[in-house]
Amino acid sequence: MRDVAIIGVAQTKFGELWDSSFRDLVTEAGLGAIQDAQIEGNDLEAMFVGNMSAGLFVQQEHIASLITDNSGLNPVPCTRVEAACASGGLALRSGIMAVASGYHDIVISAGVEKMTDVVDSTGAIATASDQEWEAQQGVTFPSLYAMMARRHMYEYGTTREQLAMVSVINHSNAKHNLNAQYPFDISVEKVLNSSKVADPLRLLDCSPVSDGAAAVILCPAEDAKKYTDTPIYVKASAQSSGTIRLHDRKSLTTIDSSVNASREAFKMANMTPKDIDAVEVHDCFSINGLLAIEDIGFVEKGRGGPAIEEGMTRIDGDIPVNPSGGLKARGHPLGATGIAQAAEIVWQLRGEAGKRQIDGAEVGMTHNIGGTGGTAAVHIFSR
Amino acid sequence: MRDVAIIGVAQTKFGELWDSSFRDLVTEAGLGAIQDAQIEGNDLEAMFVGNMSAGLFVQQEHIASLITDNSGLNPVPCTRVEAACASGGLALRSGIMAVASGYHDIVISAGVEKMTDVVDSTGAIATASDQEWEAQQGVTFPSLYAMMARRHMYEYGTTREQLAMVSVINHSNAKHNLNAQYPFDISVEKVLNSSKVADPLRLLDCSPVSDGAAAVILCPAEDAKKYTDTPIYVKASAQSSGTIRLHDRKSLTTIDSSVNASREAFKMANMTPKDIDAVEVHDCFSINGLLAIEDIGFVEKGRGGPAIEEGMTRIDGDIPVNPSGGLKARGHPLGATGIAQAAEIVWQLRGEAGKRQIDGAEVGMTHNIGGTGGTAAVHIFSR
Repeated sequence: MRDVAIIGVAQTKFGELWDSSFRDLVTEAGLGAIQDAQIEGNDLEAMFVGNMSAGLFVQQEHIASLITDNSGLNPVPCTRVEAACASGGLALRSGIMAVASGYHDIVISAGVEKMTDVVDSTGAIATASDQEWEAQQGVTFPSLYAMMARRHMYEYGTTREQLAMVSVINHSNAKHNLNAQYPFDISVEKVLNSSKVADPLRLLDCSPVSDGAAAVILCPAEDAKKYTDTPIYVKASAQSSGTIRLHDRKSLTTIDSSVNASREAFKMANMTPKDIDAVEVHDCFSINGLLAIEDIGFVEKGRGGPAIEEGMTRIDGDIPVNPSGGLKARGHPLGATGIAQAAEIVWQLRGEAGKRQIDGAEVGMTHNIGGTGGTAAVHIFSR
Repeated sequence: MRDVAIIGVAQTKFGELWDSSFRDLVTEAGLGAIQDAQIEGNDLEAMFVGNMSAGLFVQQEHIASLITDNSGLNPVPCTRVEAACASGGLALRSGIMAVASGYHDIVISAGVEKMTDVVDSTGAIATASDQEWEAQQGVTFPSLYAMMARRHMYEYGTTREQLAMVSVINHSNAKHNLNAQYPFDISVEKVLNSSKVADPLRLLDCSPVSDGAAAVILCPAEDAKKYTDTPIYVKASAQSSGTIRLHDRKSLTTIDSSVNASREAFKMANMTPKDIDAVEVHDCFSINGLLAIEDIGFVEKGRGGPAIEEGMTRIDGDIPVNPSGGLKARGHPLGATGIAQAAEIVWQLRGEAGKRQIDGAEVGMTHNIGGTGGTAAVHIFSR
């Protein structure tokens, strides 16, 4: 098994991008990563693209072919991978395997979603849950995560204010991220006074509907210095499945797939949570930002609320979480998220994150969830 | 790079399976392959599932999680891959890379599609073409392939009867395949008198709308004999992209991705077309069965029609094509097709194909196309 490195990254602006089509976005991200890696398009040997539902969002399947064609990259093989909001994480993992296997040397893993030009984005997103047992019964994602939040408050005394702090910290990081959808501060009070979506979650607890794309270029670790002075090495790539249906869980307050994928990643990298200097977690709703730091093992189960309140996850805290602004404030174009997380960690480890730079970050992690945790992908990277 | 072998295969009946849901079908195929490999479910380390459009067909994305969950296989990682009708071939290739890389030892690659419980299957299938330049203009797949057929007739004198023979030969093989959707003979006359779909193609030139699933179990070649006395070895796994839009092609009668993927596969296996004893090609329409034998290199460009008329592709011919009955007569549940092709070749190479057995088959090939050739996946296997 060959070790793998990242030699180029790029991300489009995330947001309501009315002037950019699906194909525009992914081409922009791909070309950006190619430029960043200082390679040529025809150096690429394979492409992987994470995308949740171009079929429902823009009535386009076979996007792998569309993307290769529109980028002028035929006959390079391209494969779309999908696992709802974890599609990007899995595209990254597929690219890593393609290089590790020896099948390909220089590979691009991208992610893209165009969500704003559609009639029923909530309905499309709901297909990440179990259609027969959840979506058809009228359950949507805010309500599923609301139940997890309510139960966490009941079991551990987590407060509404602690949940709000997840969003507040995300926004305070996003204001230094030019690619973020919401690059401005918000307050706890503002979160608590925003409109109710699914009790106890309010509008500012929820990640937005976003357009965007991101891409990373991978190559064998042994070749990485040929392309860049600052390669970032993949230390672990782990993936785990959990129940797709929330009602089948042993617990509403633990996402087993997060726990399993994180444990496997730490084992693979021969590291512990203490080794991580920066982490991008999947905070599609504020409660998930809180569950993530418990499930990964940064704090004990139930201690997420107080830890966040005490500033542990701030950019100058013990374990800086979501320096990019996270799904809440950077934005959450579903298939792009897992790749954007990796791009942020690469910028952090290269020391290129500007005003949101975490001092001396040497090891970083990404945590990408599909649905309510039916899929989890966890990666660890180092300088 | 580790060599890879197939130690188990299974396929459900293909057809209009009103009593089987999406989840029933894939579970049946997966359990069948596990039994065939004589392993236990918890021996599996990773799963890959090819599926074109559960989102549009059954309003379900995140099928990787659904499948793992419903098979009782959590926390095994599962990844859906998609490239329209080549989704199965890419799921196979992803599984091969996962084993070749050393990331996983025992892996299942499956494919599934449930197409009969939907309002607009033609519209869903059309999302495999370019939505903006083709589908939205009213072009559907029969009409795209009809243009390719008409041009082939014009350029090379290919006859209507020669096209019909593709379907006739497929049906004559399918009648010995219990899993086939149409296990009975048809005649050239019957094809020529069937209703017109898109001139010159008629109903019996077209593969059907089908439900079905298939699965194969992969492991490192060096371990294969632990599980079975008849492992089948993967000699090549190749993939290529071509233009998604038909009107961008240099030629309407050559599918570049087929040519490129086939060439790469022969190079990887260090073989030529003469080494192949059995091939499953992607005959979604009769013309594509004809183009395939030209593009792979079994005959010269333009010679497909006469070769088929002379019996070259019959089960007792020089290069037996589609012993299973092919997409036309075995059926074509889009995401399942690439895996079902591999299952058929495994049965042929094991000598387990019953009345459709090709005598002494030692090397076999599968050829799986997405759209009108935006994606091609070609695999070579040997005893």
